[in-house]
Amino acid sequence: MKTGLIGIDWGTTHRRAYLLGEGGVLLEERADDQGLLAARGRFAESFEAVVRGWPREWPVLMSGMVGAASGWQEAPYLEASTPLTSLSRHLVPLNDAPPGRRVLLVPGYRWIGPSGEVDVMRGEETQLLGALALGQADGWVVLPGTHSKWVRLERGVMQGFRTYMTGELFALLGEHGTLAGIVGPEDVPEAFEAGLLAAGRGALSHTIFGCRAKVVTGRMPAAHARSYLSGLLIGAEWVDTRPAPRTVTVVAAGALASAYGEAARHHGSTPVVLEPRAVFLAALASLQEGIDR
Amino acid sequence: MKTGLIGIDWGTTHRRAYLLGEGGVLLEERADDQGLLAARGRFAESFEAVVRGWPREWPVLMSGMVGAASGWQEAPYLEASTPLTSLSRHLVPLNDAPPGRRVLLVPGYRWIGPSGEVDVMRGEETQLLGALALGQADGWVVLPGTHSKWVRLERGVMQGFRTYMTGELFALLGEHGTLAGIVGPEDVPEAFEAGLLAAGRGALSHTIFGCRAKVVTGRMPAAHARSYLSGLLIGAEWVDTRPAPRTVTVVAAGALASAYGEAARHHGSTPVVLEPRAVFLAALASLQEGIDR
Repeated sequence: MKTGLIGIDWGTTHRRAYLLGEGGVLLEERADDQGLLAARGRFAESFEAVVRGWPREWPVLMSGMVGAASGWQEAPYLEASTPLTSLSRHLVPLNDAPPGRRVLLVPGYRWIGPSGEVDVMRGEETQLLGALALGQADGWVVLPGTHSKWVRLERGVMQGFRTYMTGELFALLGEHGTLAGIVGPEDVPEAFEAGLLAAGRGALSHTIFGCRAKVVTGRMPAAHARSYLSGLLIGAEWVDTRPAPRTVTVVAAGALASAYGEAARHHGSTPVVLEPRAVFLAALASLQEGIDR
Repeated sequence: MKTGLIGIDWGTTHRRAYLLGEGGVLLEERADDQGLLAARGRFAESFEAVVRGWPREWPVLMSGMVGAASGWQEAPYLEASTPLTSLSRHLVPLNDAPPGRRVLLVPGYRWIGPSGEVDVMRGEETQLLGALALGQADGWVVLPGTHSKWVRLERGVMQGFRTYMTGELFALLGEHGTLAGIVGPEDVPEAFEAGLLAAGRGALSHTIFGCRAKVVTGRMPAAHARSYLSGLLIGAEWVDTRPAPRTVTVVAAGALASAYGEAARHHGSTPVVLEPRAVFLAALASLQEGIDR
């Protein structure tokens, strides 16, 4: 490796930037809320702020929504059949990169299924490369979040993937409409478990009404509704993947890692939890090697 | 029949009041937006406004959310096993009825399933009694709306029912979050049909992401997203009830009646459409007989 690298994970609402020295050593790390929504219309300026003082001659890799049609510059989707290990050969140069800077966008992936179903990811492909670099080349990888992804890998190649609007629905239902008045702040493990169990009992539009039905009939305290709803939404992902895989790689930290770990065990699956930050750094190191070659 | 009757369908956001003469003849009809949310805290005053000038000696029947815990006065749920035809014997007198008025609340129903699942309805029981009075005593009755209900009747007795937050989710997703920017005003029949077809391909939290995935990959015009989403949400109700019943009674009018009729045909089911207003009036006539006896 001849040079260091700057890596930016630039999402819709958040941004994290990493300065990696030669050999992939982490030198510095920055995080802010200058996601797409905040930086739109002034990407160049916002970019300069996050890399200020970092070596101009080191290449910059940006992944996430920054490469969407609504981002700084569109990096067209790769087909799911493109091996993750070849990602470094498909990086897209940013046309209006600041003078002296070499900036490359990591493209997202799209998958078109046999019945015409379509799915897309942008940012998660980098996490998947990191998981691959950390030894997860086969089986199911789950990337929980606003838009959870379930990806099946075979020797580092996606065999298809599915997005679930789990985090987004959880937030929407907690803020607006019928359930908003019920869903409180408490985390109640047994209510989460009950939600996981009920997730298989019909369409999500039906099971989520159960939050209200159980509360108004006095069969569940309102304080349990939040965890029950979380169990229903996360459980729906697992119901979709029946029979549950024997092991599943979960890229998550904190409460999300606990919840998905719990859901895995509930379904008789063994979770292998990888920390998202470590996974992203592993992806950067892997891409760095690819650029150098 | 010795007297006329006043019937009020008092929901969360809307209210309709009917003045029925002896023999069930409709004399006058009023509608306003003084639903629960608007009338809370001043129910008596709001009530007087809608019945102004109507005979004080005629009984008033109120159904819907007005009898919820959050309404004027709670009318406790009946068990699903209570025959609809006995509804007139379970009416709950309003304690602080205006002087000289006899006001009765129609109670809602609750259902507790064999696996502990719980569901509730309030207002729909009156519609079901109306459907029964119009000859629909057996089979599936669907009451589309903000909270769609699927009810299986056997000789006028509910064998269980399910609520789907179809209308609420459709509104929420059109107003907030990822899909809000995509879902436009257009109705596109072939996109609705495509949504019905895709509804069976996984959890709703996954299939609805398809709206976005199809648009950003150029496989569906954004103008189709609204109808596609509608097809996914309505289709999820049908997928839950597979195999589809041979016939299904749909209590709906206008666009909703068309959509559910279309969904029924898509699933090889014959829809029998009943107009909600006619159904409510039939219910009032039926309750009027019960009160008279």
